[in-house]
Amino acid sequence: MLQPVTPEFIATLTETLGEDILRPADALYLEEPRKRIAGHAGAVVAPRNTQEVSDVLKLCSEYLIGVIPFGGGTGLVGGQIMAADQGPAPLILSLERMNTMRAIYPSENVLVAEAGMTLASIQEEAEKESRLFPLSLASEGSCRIGGNLATNAGGVNVLRYGNTRDLCLGVEAVLADGSVLNNLSRLRKDNTGYDVKNLLIGSEGTLGVITAASLRLSPRPARVGTAVLVVRDPAAALELLGIARDLSGDGVSAFELLSGTGVGFVRDTLPEIHQPFADVPEWSVLVEFGLPAALDPEALLEQLFVQGAEAGLVSDGVIAQSLAQRNQLWSLREHIPAANKKVGAIVSHDISLPLSALAEFIPHGMAKIAEIAPVRVNCFGHLGDGNLHYNVFPPVGETREAWAHVRDDIERLVHDLVHDYGGSFSAEHGIGRMKANELIRYADPTRYRVMKQMKAALDPLGILNPGAVLT
Amino acid sequence: MLQPVTPEFIATLTETLGEDILRPADALYLEEPRKRIAGHAGAVVAPRNTQEVSDVLKLCSEYLIGVIPFGGGTGLVGGQIMAADQGPAPLILSLERMNTMRAIYPSENVLVAEAGMTLASIQEEAEKESRLFPLSLASEGSCRIGGNLATNAGGVNVLRYGNTRDLCLGVEAVLADGSVLNNLSRLRKDNTGYDVKNLLIGSEGTLGVITAASLRLSPRPARVGTAVLVVRDPAAALELLGIARDLSGDGVSAFELLSGTGVGFVRDTLPEIHQPFADVPEWSVLVEFGLPAALDPEALLEQLFVQGAEAGLVSDGVIAQSLAQRNQLWSLREHIPAANKKVGAIVSHDISLPLSALAEFIPHGMAKIAEIAPVRVNCFGHLGDGNLHYNVFPPVGETREAWAHVRDDIERLVHDLVHDYGGSFSAEHGIGRMKANELIRYADPTRYRVMKQMKAALDPLGILNPGAVLT
Repeated sequence: MLQPVTPEFIATLTETLGEDILRPADALYLEEPRKRIAGHAGAVVAPRNTQEVSDVLKLCSEYLIGVIPFGGGTGLVGGQIMAADQGPAPLILSLERMNTMRAIYPSENVLVAEAGMTLASIQEEAEKESRLFPLSLASEGSCRIGGNLATNAGGVNVLRYGNTRDLCLGVEAVLADGSVLNNLSRLRKDNTGYDVKNLLIGSEGTLGVITAASLRLSPRPARVGTAVLVVRDPAAALELLGIARDLSGDGVSAFELLSGTGVGFVRDTLPEIHQPFADVPEWSVLVEFGLPAALDPEALLEQLFVQGAEAGLVSDGVIAQSLAQRNQLWSLREHIPAANKKVGAIVSHDISLPLSALAEFIPHGMAKIAEIAPVRVNCFGHLGDGNLHYNVFPPVGETREAWAHVRDDIERLVHDLVHDYGGSFSAEHGIGRMKANELIRYADPTRYRVMKQMKAALDPLGILNPGAVLT
Repeated sequence: MLQPVTPEFIATLTETLGEDILRPADALYLEEPRKRIAGHAGAVVAPRNTQEVSDVLKLCSEYLIGVIPFGGGTGLVGGQIMAADQGPAPLILSLERMNTMRAIYPSENVLVAEAGMTLASIQEEAEKESRLFPLSLASEGSCRIGGNLATNAGGVNVLRYGNTRDLCLGVEAVLADGSVLNNLSRLRKDNTGYDVKNLLIGSEGTLGVITAASLRLSPRPARVGTAVLVVRDPAAALELLGIARDLSGDGVSAFELLSGTGVGFVRDTLPEIHQPFADVPEWSVLVEFGLPAALDPEALLEQLFVQGAEAGLVSDGVIAQSLAQRNQLWSLREHIPAANKKVGAIVSHDISLPLSALAEFIPHGMAKIAEIAPVRVNCFGHLGDGNLHYNVFPPVGETREAWAHVRDDIERLVHDLVHDYGGSFSAEHGIGRMKANELIRYADPTRYRVMKQMKAALDPLGILNPGAVLT
């Protein structure tokens, strides 16, 4: 049975690690981005190095204190926050002070980062050496790489470069009993036993605390080109992706679907954001090529437009002619979440589907939802990965509060339908505490049992992020 | 304590599954490619489907019989074979009858294969749909995908497409107690809990028996170009790789280092194999580009040659002008293992190093080995992955038997040196039984302990591939 943080525990902690190990338990640690949960905590600590993380976990094991590993606090499923009714006041273990780049090896395309480095600072360090760290997502200014690894974060470049998992060559981590796993490999190939690294990645801090990682960089593409093309429908968008890949080899670095609903939300709530077309198109895609010097991205995008038009897939388009125009097109895509927030979603879904089921799923889901309520769906996201944000909004002029009663029914409908199509109810956000029951409902029972066995083996006292992933 | 296969066990087995489940225990199952181990087995079974695999494992759990999952039998570290002094006569569980392609989804770039499909047959099925399954290695005609997954096989296209692990989207597997894990996902993104799939991949049949997998295909490159270029030394080869990448984007699909020793072995023992140069060069590289239609591979290879020559990296080269010439160049690379066999290695190493340590390691290792004995080193392999086959041969005209006494000293020297450089003593072959003691010596102790915990949790009776990976 876990215990709450007590004054006695704090006294022992500060005796060992100094008063300075504590941080004020301010809002940053007790709120989550969508403000759906009010967190509680007995204390917040911020260790300066791996040894101090180990010392903290040893003490927590001794006192049976629950520990929430904390990165940038940007998670959307409550993995970094515990409500008062979810367990005794935990210790929040923030990695914010471990924010040093330990090393960079440009000729190897490797960077070794401590867990507390923000994603943006890693991108910058890579850029200084003319390298690319391709992980890119909306919260990159504040999220930390330890959290990205713990949640196997996705983002806009997964299509070409993979999820965070694929960008990690090795980890250093502290296990529940305080023992340190030293596995900061820089190797591309290493078949010496079980894949412990990938077990920690995506475990949301429930199997260990990642303290550092060796990350895979890429050469920066010599030339980049961006366009927004108006497509007939999502099926046409997928066909167009096939053409884009054939034209560019593996050069498609982003392929984002935009719905008229989402682009309309931006137009209505954020009028300062440039709109590429006079009328909001029902469906469009943002395509980006990252290419070697011998290929001309504008020429390829034009070819894509022409071939797409000839095949009846594309009806209009804007190809960026400058960096400023490129940023304008991206700005439209990147402001969709902000516009969503202004409109106020009844319920949001982070789903993925087999690519060949996508085009059928999108209207099928919308039709089924319409049977429940006359709501609007903003379906957008990482089409090339089969990953859609399928978010549901109240009718024009109404509030989400007025439609809160349909929330659970719609969520169940969408998740059941996704499951029927062989998809996932959590493509990139993870499980956290908010989706732990969905995991029980949808996971293969043998797989769920194996997960519980892993947890019991690595954290027998259950102190690591209690209640997250597994209930 | 495990028990040997007994007549009573066989009777129960055949009663449940029919006489036909048995296969004759012929040499295929009891020899390994280098013939270093003579295997023993109580019986060989070949289930027809996943349910039968489950039935077999349930029975083995009941009777405490060790089970060796068996693919194509091409493993080089004894993972598929047990000597008589290594444990009671095990049951060999061959996946050879489960060799059906369950489905292919060309538009998704996904193929679902049963574990017993040979790698070559998967490549062929992909090609029929104009897709590429990029895993490619010397034994592809006989190795089976279940074994490739169990050992996380590498090969010549890892640089661009990754190891087997990176080509697998989901698995179906049977655990030690007979329970079936249904995780044949076709999704690119799925963050619903721990990464059980990657725990099974690379576990060499010690945590579960993979029965099917959904595999990631790629579009076939529109144009392919191949060259062998003579380089100054391995450091020059690595610099050249950087240029090749800049020229082609991510278009370098193979970058293989060839040593004069290895090419000389081919010339001396396989005179029918075409030699691209009049004199055997001390170091050369085989470069392959796979490119979109808009890029000309011959032109890029010429540019690579010119830039390499200007930088003092490259002194000569042959660029294939036809498919026949391309095959000739590959034939040289692919016959090095056969030539090695004819010469007879004292000891072989399958090592990987951080890329920036490679150029220093190669001569450093050779100098240290020379202090032990006047032997020859054939260093060749997947340079772009940092993976070298660093094989040691007797002096000209002498036999490996005459130098068998230096075998252990050289192996220890090489593995210690690799470890000092932050490398791996098993880059792509795995641990099997032959390297289980090396794993104890070199693995991070916490990581090794976690591996034992995983094994205890998933296979508490220890029936799965006993003695492999963990002793």
